Amino acid sequence: MQESDWAGFFADPQALDSDAYIKLEYYLECVGDPELAAAHFCAEQSTAQWRRVGSNEDLRPRFGARVIGLEVLGTQPDFSYGIGNAKGEPVHACRVTIAHPHGNFGPRIPNLLSAVCGEGTFFSPGAAVVKLLDVHFPDAYLAHFEGPRFGVEGIRDMLQAYDRPIFFGVIKPNIGLPPDVFSDLGYQSWLGGLDIAKDDEMLGDTDWCPLQERSRLLGEARRRAEVETGTPKIYLANITDEVDRLIEQHDLAVANGANALLINAMPVGLSAVRMLRKHARVPLIAHFPFIAPFSRLGNFGIHSQVFSKLQRLAGFDSIIMPGFGERMHTSDEEVLANVDACLGPMGSLKRSLPVPGGSDWAGTLKTLHDKVGTVDFGFVPGRGVFGHPMGPQGGAKSIRQAWDAIVAGVSLDERAKTHTELEAAMTAFGGRRS
Amino acid sequence: MQESDWAGFFADPQALDSDAYIKLEYYLECVGDPELAAAHFCAEQSTAQWRRVGSNEDLRPRFGARVIGLEVLGTQPDFSYGIGNAKGEPVHACRVTIAHPHGNFGPRIPNLLSAVCGEGTFFSPGAAVVKLLDVHFPDAYLAHFEGPRFGVEGIRDMLQAYDRPIFFGVIKPNIGLPPDVFSDLGYQSWLGGLDIAKDDEMLGDTDWCPLQERSRLLGEARRRAEVETGTPKIYLANITDEVDRLIEQHDLAVANGANALLINAMPVGLSAVRMLRKHARVPLIAHFPFIAPFSRLGNFGIHSQVFSKLQRLAGFDSIIMPGFGERMHTSDEEVLANVDACLGPMGSLKRSLPVPGGSDWAGTLKTLHDKVGTVDFGFVPGRGVFGHPMGPQGGAKSIRQAWDAIVAGVSLDERAKTHTELEAAMTAFGGRRS
Repeated sequence: MQESDWAGFFADPQALDSDAYIKLEYYLECVGDPELAAAHFCAEQSTAQWRRVGSNEDLRPRFGARVIGLEVLGTQPDFSYGIGNAKGEPVHACRVTIAHPHGNFGPRIPNLLSAVCGEGTFFSPGAAVVKLLDVHFPDAYLAHFEGPRFGVEGIRDMLQAYDRPIFFGVIKPNIGLPPDVFSDLGYQSWLGGLDIAKDDEMLGDTDWCPLQERSRLLGEARRRAEVETGTPKIYLANITDEVDRLIEQHDLAVANGANALLINAMPVGLSAVRMLRKHARVPLIAHFPFIAPFSRLGNFGIHSQVFSKLQRLAGFDSIIMPGFGERMHTSDEEVLANVDACLGPMGSLKRSLPVPGGSDWAGTLKTLHDKVGTVDFGFVPGRGVFGHPMGPQGGAKSIRQAWDAIVAGVSLDERAKTHTELEAAMTAFGGRRS
Repeated sequence: MQESDWAGFFADPQALDSDAYIKLEYYLECVGDPELAAAHFCAEQSTAQWRRVGSNEDLRPRFGARVIGLEVLGTQPDFSYGIGNAKGEPVHACRVTIAHPHGNFGPRIPNLLSAVCGEGTFFSPGAAVVKLLDVHFPDAYLAHFEGPRFGVEGIRDMLQAYDRPIFFGVIKPNIGLPPDVFSDLGYQSWLGGLDIAKDDEMLGDTDWCPLQERSRLLGEARRRAEVETGTPKIYLANITDEVDRLIEQHDLAVANGANALLINAMPVGLSAVRMLRKHARVPLIAHFPFIAPFSRLGNFGIHSQVFSKLQRLAGFDSIIMPGFGERMHTSDEEVLANVDACLGPMGSLKRSLPVPGGSDWAGTLKTLHDKVGTVDFGFVPGRGVFGHPMGPQGGAKSIRQAWDAIVAGVSLDERAKTHTELEAAMTAFGGRRS
């Protein structure tokens, strides 16, 4: 690219029709002139060649991605992470903001991904280290997407649960149990006070625990628990499967009494989820495998908040995500960014219920509530309910007792004196001496 | 986990039924006892709780993933890449080989991914840095997959092209041209000797270049080129789109004369590709966006050869991948591993044609051929054909002239003396003085 050509990949954001562009934030390490690197980066993700040989046409004004912000954060002797080859030249760490014309691909998730975090992004010349930090969609683009059908309010209405978190639990042992004993664990947890008993993200439709039988038994157990407790409940069945089985698995599980469905978003594919969303009659809830390998590093890959936004775009009513604490290898800041991606404004799309999870039990509820700063979240223990020494009913009770203590402004220690299940949880999971 | 429990996640590989296990190779950094970390790692990706509270059952013998190899590669003061927190303890870099029972999830790509590179893999306690290096499927598992319908031999038969590489070209400018001028570029390239003229991976079904019109014009142009050259040709149409449009886009493009289809494998999703494979009547060819952010780092993420194997499993007849040279940020070793993943034995699955690409032109063909060491590959220039100063016909001729020189054992310099198009390519792309 000649220096005279760079200008075609830069723009004053005020001069652009903001409805026509997706705004992208990237971290980028490059050698040489950062402006040239940023221009190349835009060319690679849009119209790398902007005219035919022998023609004077210029495709850039309509089809070019444009640099609308460029900040050099610092200079370092080499690329980060031991990749790339700076050949002794200084490496500039930059933050680049790009306006990308979505007319290049339209409201299609696979084509969006191919443009904003595909070959162009990760194979720009001399820029081996790059991270897509965030994406901002104009309302005009979002208007083409269905988004969540139920959202936070829809899930609350189903459960008649307001002004408090939604209490999930992952039935454990996660894999290996036959449907009858597995469903009994779910039943016990509902009696104890869970809103939503769920299949593990690794439990699919297998010969030792077929979805047909499992959803039939858990659907029945859910209805019995609703009658006994006088409270609506949700059985969240995992229908993660090959794409050409999703619709039939939805129909089967819902007919059997599953009233929400779990899908491992990235392993199944976001576009397949969008397809299912058009058909689905119950809330769709995302689990997070296959995101951390993109998102864990500070300056390489794709930030997890991008995936949360895309999952909401694809139509998930709730998004289970790595939560707080060292165990989940995720900073508080990153968890909160993902919570915001679920709950913050996004055109006319409904809000998605964030469920930050990981090794939770009654004792972690207050911290989680304090950190997210809202009751619009889901709490999803596994062992904290199903590994409770008094069984899943006691485990679920310990969670509700912890919430009651929080609402009453009483410490867990205080509340545990009069509530056996909470006391047992604190001994089993909190390192407390009984 | 108690020390007495670890043994349940270890096995002597000789004692296991090899048909029942997928073999996985991981790089893993951990603190504390590496054996405990490896046992935890297996537990997290299989049956983390192996018995109900109050029960003496043990789900591990059937459902547990097992360590079958553990090598400590070295010890370092902290985790790599500035993630995780070793709290002053030494970090052990390990290579762990695991036998994972595929009966836990069955022959389903999304469930396979969730198990072997999902939450269990990337959220094992105290092990923030991990990379899935390779995966080996037993024939009994592979037998459930369709794999490529055409494969290398099928593509050769379609083109009647044997004993040489297959010559692809990416029509450029990649995006922004209307269908009529775009199709003329493809036509010119076929006349010049390309086997396959292809849409760019970013060119989908857009209002400025609808697939309907584009595939109709390129289908016609292909047939004309076949008559004029007396040689079969392929128009490779990019049908990357939302999953619920893939089948109709296949039908439309094929009816119009596209005789192979490009799909951006990971943005669309591997399982959606498997669905399309069952329906498709023409070769399916993969492009590589959305893989590098998983695979570029030496010791974190998922090795690209895993994706090549999965793409072959999903049914791709040919796989376009990052090729040799600094421009593509990929080591020779990694490119060759991906070539092997396409061509090496994989049960009864057909071989997939590897297409290592990136800034190719006539002058890079010999190096590529020498490095892959076989003629079973595709060569995919973009600008090297469509940015050629004599236009796409001249560009395509320059590629064929380069191959003829290789076959004749003549240097390109020598051949260029009598072949104008090769001479022009060497001047334009090779830094040669004219």
